[in-house]
Amino acid sequence: MFPTLAPPAGFDATPDGLMAFAHHLANSVRPLARRHFRTPLAVEAKADASPVTEADRGIEARLRAEIRQAYPAHGILGEEEGGDFSHDLTWVVDPIDGTQSFITGMPLFGTLIALVRGGRPLLGLIDMPALAERWHGNGSSAWFGGKPIRTSRRALAEARLFATSPDLFRGADAEAFAALSAAVGLRRFGGDCYAYGLLASGHCDLVVEAGLKVYDVMALAPVVEGAGGVMTDWAGRPLTPDFDGRVIAAANPELHAAALRHLTGFA
Amino acid sequence: MFPTLAPPAGFDATPDGLMAFAHHLANSVRPLARRHFRTPLAVEAKADASPVTEADRGIEARLRAEIRQAYPAHGILGEEEGGDFSHDLTWVVDPIDGTQSFITGMPLFGTLIALVRGGRPLLGLIDMPALAERWHGNGSSAWFGGKPIRTSRRALAEARLFATSPDLFRGADAEAFAALSAAVGLRRFGGDCYAYGLLASGHCDLVVEAGLKVYDVMALAPVVEGAGGVMTDWAGRPLTPDFDGRVIAAANPELHAAALRHLTGFA
Repeated sequence: MFPTLAPPAGFDATPDGLMAFAHHLANSVRPLARRHFRTPLAVEAKADASPVTEADRGIEARLRAEIRQAYPAHGILGEEEGGDFSHDLTWVVDPIDGTQSFITGMPLFGTLIALVRGGRPLLGLIDMPALAERWHGNGSSAWFGGKPIRTSRRALAEARLFATSPDLFRGADAEAFAALSAAVGLRRFGGDCYAYGLLASGHCDLVVEAGLKVYDVMALAPVVEGAGGVMTDWAGRPLTPDFDGRVIAAANPELHAAALRHLTGFA
Repeated sequence: MFPTLAPPAGFDATPDGLMAFAHHLANSVRPLARRHFRTPLAVEAKADASPVTEADRGIEARLRAEIRQAYPAHGILGEEEGGDFSHDLTWVVDPIDGTQSFITGMPLFGTLIALVRGGRPLLGLIDMPALAERWHGNGSSAWFGGKPIRTSRRALAEARLFATSPDLFRGADAEAFAALSAAVGLRRFGGDCYAYGLLASGHCDLVVEAGLKVYDVMALAPVVEGAGGVMTDWAGRPLTPDFDGRVIAAANPELHAAALRHLTGFA
């Protein structure tokens, strides 16, 4: 499907080599996403809950080919073709996070790349093809456009809360989200992966969502936590492949604890 | 407050001259918005319902100074300093539409510029400073980045519906919006003025909002209608300065009629 790939010169299995390869992956596919954005292909895509476009499939195929070439012993799990965690190291990719943004011409869609070992992400990268912006992190540090970033120190009453859509929340989840919303300074919808990047950069402070998949979250946690934030499920547990789809990212540990109390009804 | 402005050479009172001046206005203030975006000033702005930042005030002051210099006989109405429609021609400006986006680091805020006569906009311009994107229109034609654009032909069942936030809608308005949401193909939140530009470009098909002000809408209608869309209040009336804050923009007349029937309960 692809011409012979360049040999993976310079990529090794050190943390620096693996991170460099993650950037190489993002660089490889950014032009594909940009080429399809706002074209008739994208615009005419079906408007169902999880639209799959030629762009999604093409980007994931390219990511898989690059990974197989560079690290044939690693596993791959992606939104379009699936996969599992049976390997020691697994690349978890979402070719276009925010497909609804993509098909409506909104530039807030991203490509997510993570490397996972033992169920926990070692590194994560959020690339925004249309905006030419990128976050990356390793759980200890995080960067935006190559510059170190830190989350905010804001407390709950001033916090800016994001969720992609209120339609994520059903039943008791909707009640919990409403309770948290009433306690914060500002609530905004829209954003997908971009909101987590804004949180890592200190512009917003909470992202709370439900119904997410493993490929939606693995790349986000090393960025959020590398910038000083906390990202867990709604019970406060670290995100692992068997998480229940409910996620909270908070700019700092105090805010995380305060928000969790509202979400779980023990405020 | 400002150094002497350049003389308004080349700007006259013809439609082309007035449109050229609207672009000059947008060019003049785009750097101001970009300079303040994602700075501590923006990030630390109060997170109340309608945050006002130094950026809003500085941009509006600059717009007013330019307009007074070029067209001293024209009126000015802006979000920050107010104004009225007592002049034959009135410039209506919103320095930062989407201030909540601005203060949360989201690049979806815009500068809105309209010229109004007899309560109806003659021209409108939507500038997106952080994205370096711009729509403009005169009610008969519309352009994105200087290229002509057309709205979509999509029907209600496939339509992509945007609103900035569900929190715009109260009581019966919320019920009407829910009824419309159930009839469309896809519903997304977030976007402010940007969603109207995406509609004009054919990427989305409906924007329905409530609680808007005259400076939020006057620049949008000439773009939406110039691209082939329809923009009215929820009763189907043209937007005039005394509109009730409820707005619908639709990609085509058939979609507008179908959406209005859902909004007003006569589906």
